[in-house]
Amino acid sequence: MNALPYDEALRLDRARRLVATTRELAALGWTPATSSNFSMRMDDRHAAITVSGRDKGRLALEDIMVVDFDGRAVGSDHRPSAETLLHTQLYRRYPDIGCVLHTHSHNQTVASRLWAGQGHVHLAGYELLKAFRGNATHEMAVELPVLPNNQDMPALAAQVEHLLDRGPMWGYLIDGHGLYAWGRDMDEARRHLDAFEFLLACELDLRRLNA
Amino acid sequence: MNALPYDEALRLDRARRLVATTRELAALGWTPATSSNFSMRMDDRHAAITVSGRDKGRLALEDIMVVDFDGRAVGSDHRPSAETLLHTQLYRRYPDIGCVLHTHSHNQTVASRLWAGQGHVHLAGYELLKAFRGNATHEMAVELPVLPNNQDMPALAAQVEHLLDRGPMWGYLIDGHGLYAWGRDMDEARRHLDAFEFLLACELDLRRLNA
Amino acid sequence: MNALPYDEALRLDRARRLVATTRELAALGWTPATSSNFSMRMDDRHAAITVSGRDKGRLALEDIMVVDFDGRAVGSDHRPSAETLLHTQLYRRYPDIGCVLHTHSHNQTVASRLWAGQGHVHLAGYELLKAFRGNATHEMAVELPVLPNNQDMPALAAQVEHLLDRGPMWGYLIDGHGLYAWGRDMDEARRHLDAFEFLLACELDLRRLNA
Amino acid sequence: MNALPYDEALRLDRARRLVATTRELAALGWTPATSSNFSMRMDDRHAAITVSGRDKGRLALEDIMVVDFDGRAVGSDHRPSAETLLHTQLYRRYPDIGCVLHTHSHNQTVASRLWAGQGHVHLAGYELLKAFRGNATHEMAVELPVLPNNQDMPALAAQVEHLLDRGPMWGYLIDGHGLYAWGRDMDEARRHLDAFEFLLACELDLRRLNA
Repeated sequence: MNALPYDEALRLDRARRLVATTRELAALGWTPATSSNFSMRMDDRHAAITVSGRDKGRLALEDIMVVDFDGRAVGSDHRPSAETLLHTQLYRRYPDIGCVLHTHSHNQTVASRLWAGQGHVHLAGYELLKAFRGNATHEMAVELPVLPNNQDMPALAAQVEHLLDRGPMWGYLIDGHGLYAWGRDMDEARRHLDAFEFLLACELDLRRLNA
Repeated sequence: MNALPYDEALRLDRARRLVATTRELAALGWTPATSSNFSMRMDDRHAAITVSGRDKGRLALEDIMVVDFDGRAVGSDHRPSAETLLHTQLYRRYPDIGCVLHTHSHNQTVASRLWAGQGHVHLAGYELLKAFRGNATHEMAVELPVLPNNQDMPALAAQVEHLLDRGPMWGYLIDGHGLYAWGRDMDEARRHLDAFEFLLACELDLRRLNA
Repeated sequence: MNALPYDEALRLDRARRLVATTRELAALGWTPATSSNFSMRMDDRHAAITVSGRDKGRLALEDIMVVDFDGRAVGSDHRPSAETLLHTQLYRRYPDIGCVLHTHSHNQTVASRLWAGQGHVHLAGYELLKAFRGNATHEMAVELPVLPNNQDMPALAAQVEHLLDRGPMWGYLIDGHGLYAWGRDMDEARRHLDAFEFLLACELDLRRLNA
Repeated sequence: MNALPYDEALRLDRARRLVATTRELAALGWTPATSSNFSMRMDDRHAAITVSGRDKGRLALEDIMVVDFDGRAVGSDHRPSAETLLHTQLYRRYPDIGCVLHTHSHNQTVASRLWAGQGHVHLAGYELLKAFRGNATHEMAVELPVLPNNQDMPALAAQVEHLLDRGPMWGYLIDGHGLYAWGRDMDEARRHLDAFEFLLACELDLRRLNA
């Protein structure tokens, strides 16, 4: 028999937390039509991630699979999402990243379309900017990058690497697609996700109000 | 005694799934004021469909009736919805269609009013276009037709037949009325419905934002 | 001892249904800051109505009091809402009205401000117009009146009487205040309320979209 | 051993009510990304207040700490929120204030950005103005002040003192940050909070509608 190359108790722990968070985000309407995917680091070679194509509001523990940092299935024949590579590139590059959340909310999608041309969304003047690790004041602006969409994942991952070379960041948008946000653990990744969503909603509304 | 011309266990199976889905859609506010109707194929002559005029948030198993593909009640004296014909024409024409969902959401209604003049809504540039069966990339646009509203159901059904003659499609809007969406099974029909709703919401908002 | 001039079992029946509906409407956000009130006819002289000033999301059976058709408390010393008269004038005038629902939703309030100047909201071209009793087609328009707000209830009630003299109707708005909707029973009043809310939301959005 | 300088049963009573209200407000989305804080008076020297940095949707009884009116922790080594001073200045100045609620809703944040330049939001013509203690008619306008944001809490508190010198008020906005609202007890503070939120939403929407 083949021993699993990872700790199954660890997979189950990650699965429980990913399923709970994913159901919350689905209830908010941020994972329409089986889209979106969510992962947590297990160790220095493996991550637990949602399998492809499931309704995120009905996820079960067996819908969380294990992948290596090249995005390949480990210990199962589940099909990983095409976008697995966008998760694992973060775990490989940054040992202190523990969780990556990718959602498709209305505000994220609309903001990505609206600001794709300028390549980023400028977020400034909000108390909630303090939600991002390292920001101690509302006076520090955040530039959220917007990448062009691409079905070629290695090409998209290479564009993300270029962004990451510029300095620390906690998320990016893909045009017409959605948001990637991350953090050292699930709580921090969720706080960053919630803050991006809130700030994008405010920026969109200020534009509707011609402010 | 008269034997039922369909399998009652099959009706009950369909009723359970229709009631569960209908309650979810009612909770989203997509079935205002007892509107909307939902069906599943039973066999090559019968479909199970919601009876007319009930509050869709309080549907019970006995509120799902059986109709033949001419839209006539079978095995009960329930009154089928006037729009039953728009469901059964799809089951008759396409043997692989298993579920038809018709909702009246705010976004569907507003989009139908806004784009009735041009006769369709152009949906392009969204990752979520991949939610429609047969679409493998965000680069494939979808044209969602908008038909004029009509209380004469055979006339409306004839207009739909003309649309279907043009090629495969997964839904259409009726002006001031709502959306029909369908799929091979309940999961696929629901994924198509959710994707149309999401994309219409984005298109409306981009217009509000003058994008 | 004084016998109650009404049937207590009837009050309890009405109270159960009013509390259930009121909690649903509160959960939708249509009763902000203890506003709104709801009633059902008991007999040809009494109605059951929510007492004044309670959080509508936490209503209990004892928060439903009995009033006569002059709006005076019967069988209790509860304080009836100042607007009780706007409910009882409908029960007195129309023996077939069984339920009156008064809410303060965002859309109702904004629409009342926007169209107070022209004195009504024109609702046309929607399938959901069929939700109003007596309407068989989307081709019948509905004019929803908008009255000026007034803290003098007898004066406001007199304005409503003038409106009612013009012909049958199922609701009216008060400027900056909210909607009154009614029907022969709770289900019909609720269907009318939901239809007005939905149609006002559509009309507001079409204006936002410059349609 | 050191006796606590406050009544622990009182802390528990306040904690139960603060946790219940905080969870409701979190479910409304008014406390994004661990923001917002909530307090109740205990006696003439102490208040119970939410500790800093917790997810407000998952608050437990031990997440409510005691502070004195200088904003210092009493009887625990929990870290009080930086904004504790904005709560305690109200308890010190007004013996009849019993509850202070500070939230970061979308509408509060957007309105604060939009009207920061003019320094206040003018609220007039709404029935719901009667929700504020002391207002008996929709004809009394309310001016909701908007203060510049500031990470220096004593400086911000001094600005609030200037506002309070002008006369009685039930809330203020901070630019890009959120709303403070208060009342004699939890119910009144909540009613004021709900009324401000509702009225800001209406004012924003009337501007979107160019009304």
